[in-house]
Amino acid sequence: MRAAITGLRGVSVQGDSMREVWRNLPEETPVALVFNGTTAAVMMASPQDIEDFAFGFALTEGFIDTLDQVDSFEVVAHEAGIEARFWITEARAKAMQARRRNMLGPVGCGLCGIDSLEQAIRPLPRLVAAGPRLTRAEVARATDALRAHQPLHDQTHAVHAAGFLLPGQGIVLAREDVGRHNALDKLIGAMVRGGVEAGAGAIVLTSRVSVEMVQKTVMAGCPVLIAVSAPTAHALRLALDAGLTLAAFARGGGFDLYTHPDRIQTGACDAA
Amino acid sequence: MRAAITGLRGVSVQGDSMREVWRNLPEETPVALVFNGTTAAVMMASPQDIEDFAFGFALTEGFIDTLDQVDSFEVVAHEAGIEARFWITEARAKAMQARRRNMLGPVGCGLCGIDSLEQAIRPLPRLVAAGPRLTRAEVARATDALRAHQPLHDQTHAVHAAGFLLPGQGIVLAREDVGRHNALDKLIGAMVRGGVEAGAGAIVLTSRVSVEMVQKTVMAGCPVLIAVSAPTAHALRLALDAGLTLAAFARGGGFDLYTHPDRIQTGACDAA
Repeated sequence: MRAAITGLRGVSVQGDSMREVWRNLPEETPVALVFNGTTAAVMMASPQDIEDFAFGFALTEGFIDTLDQVDSFEVVAHEAGIEARFWITEARAKAMQARRRNMLGPVGCGLCGIDSLEQAIRPLPRLVAAGPRLTRAEVARATDALRAHQPLHDQTHAVHAAGFLLPGQGIVLAREDVGRHNALDKLIGAMVRGGVEAGAGAIVLTSRVSVEMVQKTVMAGCPVLIAVSAPTAHALRLALDAGLTLAAFARGGGFDLYTHPDRIQTGACDAA
Repeated sequence: MRAAITGLRGVSVQGDSMREVWRNLPEETPVALVFNGTTAAVMMASPQDIEDFAFGFALTEGFIDTLDQVDSFEVVAHEAGIEARFWITEARAKAMQARRRNMLGPVGCGLCGIDSLEQAIRPLPRLVAAGPRLTRAEVARATDALRAHQPLHDQTHAVHAAGFLLPGQGIVLAREDVGRHNALDKLIGAMVRGGVEAGAGAIVLTSRVSVEMVQKTVMAGCPVLIAVSAPTAHALRLALDAGLTLAAFARGGGFDLYTHPDRIQTGACDAA
């Protein structure tokens, strides 16, 4: 496995003073996601937990629905980056072929502009399960709790994390990456590979909530998303439509609650 | 033009207290970048300054080298998003066709994994110009200076900015977006369209410095990059190779200097 961190020399300037410093900087490497011999995407990512990343990406971007659609999988390190190779079942490969043109961010996909736009915001399944019941305090402290699971960030102060919170148990799993989408895909991949039931808890993010973060959380079947920073208005509308409970600005002991508040105890009657 | 901000109602929870709040949240919309009738990419972006975004993207991703390769351009608003349509010269279209498979993040490009990885880190031109000569104080205060040019961030606390700093003049141009790459593309597009010479100053970012931020800055021909947060180790190696002066952690009156320090007055002799 490649190192996640590289120590590099710099010069620290503060007012008139200058001194040489060593900084632990996060690595970043191209990761090619390859399905049945064809590259589906190349993402810049932190080079650890690549298996989790690959499975999370495959699931949240709709390449596979379940693990048993994967016949075989291998990670191959090259000088130029890391290749994650999936061989998926013939039936799934055919379904994927039909779907390939619908991916967000198609490059040279041959579609005209209007078709591409309509396919960028893909229809999401609706989360219908009751889901977890979290206390206000659990939500308010969720991003503080995640801080204890960010070893790469402790050393570099420069990477994102995504964690999974279970009611009464705190953060039970977390993953880190230079990219916030990648951190979330790594977490989701780790959950699916480890048999962690996404419907029983909340995903916690160190980032803002853009459309893609809502899409991935819903695709993973997790009914609650808690983030340290702001949502976009579009992300919030998607969360409302998909039945996702969205808490943002979760820091300093408080949070904003925007959609589907029923999974968080906010009313006076909840205290009983 | 679409609104850049939408006011939405939420519930603010702080300890035992709860109150309704209105939040100004940034919008986010799919933007299709279409060259001669074919979609090259769909990006989620803030819906303002789309012309700047489109031209910046076209230049930093190598679809065009100069403005005169564009025969015509129009922005078309659809219900599903915004379409930026370029009609480029026949000669350039042919060159682009050959290059299309080399884009970062190809989706369904037909390449195998190894080829995709090698093409993800595209060769960059080397910045050979002397470039600007900045004082330590200008670099140390650059991100503070940018704060005065972030009206969308003032209202939403949730968007990135990229600005252009000229020695002795401060920030002369800035653009904002929910995505840090988009903010940089918008800035570069605005510079090229406005005839601002990229070689004369520094680009200033509210974000971290990943590989793509170095790639775009070098493609724009700007020799100095100043960022509030950390670089990745890979981004730093690219900056070193490309001849880019990279200052990071530029905040609180100080900064780290990693590569090509000659464009910033750091030595004792500079004080003379």
